[in-house]
Amino acid sequence: MYAFTSPFANPAGSPIRELFKYLSEPGMISFAGGYPASDLFDVDGLAAAQTRAFAQPTRCLQYGPTDGLAELKAQLILLMASRGAPCAAEELLVTTGSQQGLDLLLRVMVAPGDVVVTEQPAYPATLQALRLQQAKIVTVPVDADGLNVDHLSALLREGKIAVPKLLYTVPTFANPTGATLSRERRIALLKLAVEYRFLIVEDDPYGDLRFAGETVPTLLGLTAEVPGSRDWVVHFSSLSKVVAPGLRVGWTVAPPEIARRCVVAKQTVDLCSVPWTQAIAAEYLADGALTRHLPKITEAYRRKCDAMCGALRDKLGDAIQFHAPQGGMFVWARLAAVKTSELLPHAIAQKVLFVPGTAFFAEHADEASLRLSFAAPAVTAIEDGVARLARAMDATGKKIG
Amino acid sequence: MYAFTSPFANPAGSPIRELFKYLSEPGMISFAGGYPASDLFDVDGLAAAQTRAFAQPTRCLQYGPTDGLAELKAQLILLMASRGAPCAAEELLVTTGSQQGLDLLLRVMVAPGDVVVTEQPAYPATLQALRLQQAKIVTVPVDADGLNVDHLSALLREGKIAVPKLLYTVPTFANPTGATLSRERRIALLKLAVEYRFLIVEDDPYGDLRFAGETVPTLLGLTAEVPGSRDWVVHFSSLSKVVAPGLRVGWTVAPPEIARRCVVAKQTVDLCSVPWTQAIAAEYLADGALTRHLPKITEAYRRKCDAMCGALRDKLGDAIQFHAPQGGMFVWARLAAVKTSELLPHAIAQKVLFVPGTAFFAEHADEASLRLSFAAPAVTAIEDGVARLARAMDATGKKIG
Repeated sequence: MYAFTSPFANPAGSPIRELFKYLSEPGMISFAGGYPASDLFDVDGLAAAQTRAFAQPTRCLQYGPTDGLAELKAQLILLMASRGAPCAAEELLVTTGSQQGLDLLLRVMVAPGDVVVTEQPAYPATLQALRLQQAKIVTVPVDADGLNVDHLSALLREGKIAVPKLLYTVPTFANPTGATLSRERRIALLKLAVEYRFLIVEDDPYGDLRFAGETVPTLLGLTAEVPGSRDWVVHFSSLSKVVAPGLRVGWTVAPPEIARRCVVAKQTVDLCSVPWTQAIAAEYLADGALTRHLPKITEAYRRKCDAMCGALRDKLGDAIQFHAPQGGMFVWARLAAVKTSELLPHAIAQKVLFVPGTAFFAEHADEASLRLSFAAPAVTAIEDGVARLARAMDATGKKIG
Repeated sequence: MYAFTSPFANPAGSPIRELFKYLSEPGMISFAGGYPASDLFDVDGLAAAQTRAFAQPTRCLQYGPTDGLAELKAQLILLMASRGAPCAAEELLVTTGSQQGLDLLLRVMVAPGDVVVTEQPAYPATLQALRLQQAKIVTVPVDADGLNVDHLSALLREGKIAVPKLLYTVPTFANPTGATLSRERRIALLKLAVEYRFLIVEDDPYGDLRFAGETVPTLLGLTAEVPGSRDWVVHFSSLSKVVAPGLRVGWTVAPPEIARRCVVAKQTVDLCSVPWTQAIAAEYLADGALTRHLPKITEAYRRKCDAMCGALRDKLGDAIQFHAPQGGMFVWARLAAVKTSELLPHAIAQKVLFVPGTAFFAEHADEASLRLSFAAPAVTAIEDGVARLARAMDATGKKIG
């Protein structure tokens, strides 16, 4: 009865959210979500920050600046500097999670038909946002060292793809692959962006969640080493994975002209993000609470990741291949003998949930792949869940090991 | 250096925000903002709600449902019923202020080139959102009884405009005019929507701020009296003006198919609005605090409105015409002998700020009009500010009275 003629009117629901209906089944163990562990939230630290924030109630309760509360911006600038990526206030805007940062950037930068490059596999909400913006998606494969920059370079040099408007990547502990782009590839990618004049969109929600290996600088941080590249990097980050998603505090660091246009677009979109939780976040960061609490999260994730990788090796052996990640929340794996869409119903029957990898592909889906998140379940549940996965595999009738 | 080819890339800044730079001048009295009075916030009630909300920290800190926290939705359904407009959970979604409700609705419903009707004058952020969505804006004039529905009816009957996709109106205590659409016109508008099959978008942030006259039912509430009209009404409301903008809690009530698509669009836009302030809002409403506190706000606004209208009559006499509003935050006025753009620099020199009416016109701007908000300043500041306006008028060299 209604004429839904807008390009935005007919989005498909998220394939991951489709699985959420099984979460309420009693006894279900879920490796499906991208949620951080609720029992690792710094409840005491956040309660204290809440009290300090509300000591100035008007700051919490009145409309705030569209680009974010000045106190929070100051803290985020310090945080970026501590991560080796200093930035200026005019480059930074606060958003309702980094998801909104992406939405604003795409609305400002991407016209229908523009070419946009993504990693393959990639975060489904990004693919969805690109489709709704009517971008032409070009994919570049990912391996254990992240995005294959040589492949992209060849595509550009040989004129096989148009120069993209932008390239989207999660270079550190990627969702879904857990892979981290090597330093060499980062430098090469920055040079490519300068040469061909396209924006690199670095989405970095997981970078602080390293529990093994050496830190690799962000693309934003490495712009200092590649002349001209600072103009071609937009960086997203968020407190969702390192503090709490319920703050909905994300931020964008972008060249000033792009940041300014995102702020003007945000006036129309929601006027400002929630000043109240911005004030809480500012107090939490000013107190040094993130620095104190973060090791508890990364240590817990290290144990959970070890438990998952160990159990996968023990229980599934050669039936599964994966690289153990050095941080983040995800193990990306491939099954040797069965499609993950065939495994899923058996897994659900065994009361364990994962995301079939097909959800993460814009094209040419790898039907043997799957994403397992170790962040939320306890270690014992992880071990139990992997045992259930092994039983589900048995139930498919395919041989293990 | 960047190719800003997206239709969303080049929004003009808000003409009202342009004035904000003067707010920081010492001694400035502002009638320009649309902000509620900070000193009327229920700080104690909200502090108590904050404590109760955080007693269940995971609910505040984890991701929440895209359509809103169930507890808050339940409270908003009760609130809508108490306002004479009952609705179902599947019709209601929580948004980051009602500004986001409009953005989501326009993205889902409006394709480039679609005709959209607005009142004239209208809220500038709505005009901006419509332009960015590439709608074709058709305006219908407003008088003391709100939108001229007969005028719209004639335009449609005579085929002078295409049938619109939707019509946007603030029917109660409109921004900027303060006018309230009469009950008769509401019924006529609902019948027109059913006949021509267009959506009425009822934006209702101010409806609870009545301090004089009789309550007029909302368009949503009146759908019960006009068969078939429920399918053609989308209703926005918000806690920004009656509790606090810093919660950023708005909501949309829409036909289920439209509400569902807005929720799917919101997955891509920001995943969910802030669960933390949603939980605080739910606790605040469940406690009955809004019902207890609201009379304090309306009584204060009545006194402020009386002070402004009295001072305008006393100090400016025949040099200004206006209708005293029965609620809301705004007095809309016309000057007899001077353009408001000519008055503004003299007003700023006298340390008083208002918004020239031209900001609210999509076309054929009325250069004699201006908007004065009485919500934020104290009564004495209102009286002082109007005296300054009178001096500014003198300074233009035009005769008063």
